[in-house]
Amino acid sequence: MRHPSGQPQVVIIGGGFGGLSAARALRNSPVRVTVVDRRNHHLFQPLLYQVAIAGLSPAEIASPIRSILRTQVNCSVLLAEVTGIDLAHRRVELVGGELHFDYLVVAAGAQNHYFGHDDWEPHAPGLKSLDDALEIRKRVLLAFERAERATSDAERSRLLTFAVIGGGPTGVELAGAVAELARSVLSTEFRAIDTVTTRVILIEMSPRILGAFSPETAKAAAEQLAEIGVEVRTGVTVSNLDAGGLDVAGFRIEAATILWAAGVAASPIAAALGADLDRVGRVLVEKDCSIPADPSVFAIGDMAAFMVGGRALPGVSPVALQQGAFVAALIDQKVRGMPRTERFSYRDKGAMSTIGRSRAVAEKGQLRLRGFAAWLAWLVVHVFFLIGFRNRVSVIFNWVWSYLTYARGARLITGTFDPRPSLHPGTLSDPDDEDPTLPPAPLP
Amino acid sequence: MRHPSGQPQVVIIGGGFGGLSAARALRNSPVRVTVVDRRNHHLFQPLLYQVAIAGLSPAEIASPIRSILRTQVNCSVLLAEVTGIDLAHRRVELVGGELHFDYLVVAAGAQNHYFGHDDWEPHAPGLKSLDDALEIRKRVLLAFERAERATSDAERSRLLTFAVIGGGPTGVELAGAVAELARSVLSTEFRAIDTVTTRVILIEMSPRILGAFSPETAKAAAEQLAEIGVEVRTGVTVSNLDAGGLDVAGFRIEAATILWAAGVAASPIAAALGADLDRVGRVLVEKDCSIPADPSVFAIGDMAAFMVGGRALPGVSPVALQQGAFVAALIDQKVRGMPRTERFSYRDKGAMSTIGRSRAVAEKGQLRLRGFAAWLAWLVVHVFFLIGFRNRVSVIFNWVWSYLTYARGARLITGTFDPRPSLHPGTLSDPDDEDPTLPPAPLP
Repeated sequence: MRHPSGQPQVVIIGGGFGGLSAARALRNSPVRVTVVDRRNHHLFQPLLYQVAIAGLSPAEIASPIRSILRTQVNCSVLLAEVTGIDLAHRRVELVGGELHFDYLVVAAGAQNHYFGHDDWEPHAPGLKSLDDALEIRKRVLLAFERAERATSDAERSRLLTFAVIGGGPTGVELAGAVAELARSVLSTEFRAIDTVTTRVILIEMSPRILGAFSPETAKAAAEQLAEIGVEVRTGVTVSNLDAGGLDVAGFRIEAATILWAAGVAASPIAAALGADLDRVGRVLVEKDCSIPADPSVFAIGDMAAFMVGGRALPGVSPVALQQGAFVAALIDQKVRGMPRTERFSYRDKGAMSTIGRSRAVAEKGQLRLRGFAAWLAWLVVHVFFLIGFRNRVSVIFNWVWSYLTYARGARLITGTFDPRPSLHPGTLSDPDDEDPTLPPAPLP
Repeated sequence: MRHPSGQPQVVIIGGGFGGLSAARALRNSPVRVTVVDRRNHHLFQPLLYQVAIAGLSPAEIASPIRSILRTQVNCSVLLAEVTGIDLAHRRVELVGGELHFDYLVVAAGAQNHYFGHDDWEPHAPGLKSLDDALEIRKRVLLAFERAERATSDAERSRLLTFAVIGGGPTGVELAGAVAELARSVLSTEFRAIDTVTTRVILIEMSPRILGAFSPETAKAAAEQLAEIGVEVRTGVTVSNLDAGGLDVAGFRIEAATILWAAGVAASPIAAALGADLDRVGRVLVEKDCSIPADPSVFAIGDMAAFMVGGRALPGVSPVALQQGAFVAALIDQKVRGMPRTERFSYRDKGAMSTIGRSRAVAEKGQLRLRGFAAWLAWLVVHVFFLIGFRNRVSVIFNWVWSYLTYARGARLITGTFDPRPSLHPGTLSDPDDEDPTLPPAPLP
């Protein structure tokens, strides 16, 4: 069905960096744009780990897609789940409906991937959505609360051990943030435990962390992680994990909280395009980001494998942003009847990873930063790109405040949970036990 | 079990206004204090409705109890669920443990109460906890999203009708806030619906709203509600409600979102004290807030019925704050061996209710305010009493910002949900229907 205006219909699946970038770049084009997403908000994913460790509130890193695009009159936003794509009939199938398209931009992102170990997911949540972050926040905060109530040293030690699997930027950020939370923020608040004794173990399969960075930068990151007490274990494989801990290189680590940062795969929507996929489910796209079968259908961002020199571009926001703007320009040219053969080329923006308060690494070409300088660069870049002025000011305020006071703003446990120290049958302290009285508060 | 220090153990159940007030007032007393709560945070309940309508983030009105009390060395905090109170053996029973006490302060607050209609709860959530507020936020925001996708006028109109049951301060605040959200904040963001047509109906059984205020103030509130389009229906009874709407005074109102603000009852922990309870389960306490059977066990705040002139003091924060400080002073005197017979007397702080941007009512004795003056008074009082400097600044910032821009900060839908317009079997638009294509975005 054509739009009554006669203008071509552009459907964009996904309101992440790629989708939003494409929608905004089409604001002056003679097209009708519909952005469809199963979430009502755009998520500033690079700061998601801050929600997971209670540094920021969800609303500080997320804005309603509808709100971001409200002034763009040729654009509407639809909250709906995509179930399929029918290229022949030019329609996107939704739960409870469908959408006609003339041009389609698929930018549905990536999701956690356990490489054949899906049964690990309940014990080791990954970090892709706000709900993921709130789940991790709950687990991390509850671990300390349960440790405060623990009645044995073994239980206490297990509850104060955190394992982070995966030494990429997300793993490094999570491990650093948990260590800082334990060592500074929480250290004055408990009476029965000393949170400074918390163990944080970062586990990486390959020989070093931050594989996408230079060896020097990775070394700088490892040194800074060690400074704040994170134990970095590289070149080791996780062979099993469960609710009580994990097996690494033949050794058992008793850890109540395990976080997954070892890998992501493309959204399953990628498969609906019928194109060839790479090892992690990404669409192998042409040089103009279209799919081989259809020059008016594009896949961009984390779910596309855009090959440069035999390697796919990394799943980072600058790639998605640039690809979104590129395909929007291409669609605009086609609609206006001046199609040109174009190739997308990526301008490398460099890479950075934060480790904690005043600690980070950054590199771009030959430029390499570490420590406070890298942290400041990271801060400026991330705050600058946060969508929506309110969020930006709010985040700056929160960071300045927590930098000065070591306080954390969003340490809330919501939803249902069981605050008891152990949920393993048999080790629960039973009210009928001989001496079940909790230890009284120690003297100061 | 006595504490090794030999100091008496004071257990406080509940980290709300009453419990925190008691704990803080005991900071220089020769006692050991344990605050036990099943939530890790103190909640600034007067602003909870702001979370429910996406004006504030949860972290802006809640702080970890542990964090608030971190510098009080004679106090520890325990995250645990209380299952019973054994007065004879001086212990509080927990899921997975127990606590000895010499003095007990029960300040467990109130919960939603449906007066024999518990089956209404799934269709009409109340507003007592952060989880309640997030559930309401999700329903309110989803109603607009679903309306945008609706395929019939009837469905659209049902989705854009909100019913609030109960004309006390909470009901007035919720109704006013939903109306404002629809009329200003959301009005530019949708393409298929006009959110200004949203109906908000406030239903009150008694002849007027705000029964605890003077008739003049209630009239001023009703007028201001009418100004922002809220339909106030007084003297009518809800005879039935379900997922599709409600029956009021013999008429059917089709409303997709129904909110419950018609009543609360005391926490079930009140019953565990073995004392007489009033009609809504509150403990009938003595003139010093103790229970008749035991002068070292106190019930305070929303779960206590402290009778003055034949009426119980209202369930508002000043009562809980003053009672907490009072029982702390009493315990201090007893522990120091200088017990005096004391009677709690309540200093009335007045009452206020906000209706919207620049609209509110307030009264104290003969002083009555309405409109902008009342709203400013409400703002100052509420922000001033917010616990924790960071929250206060953050809330001020948010309010100034949203006052100037009409923007809302926390419009996130999280958790699981179905974005389809109707969840009634039979009315769902089916992909196999004749013309299931969603209407395209209208032209500007």
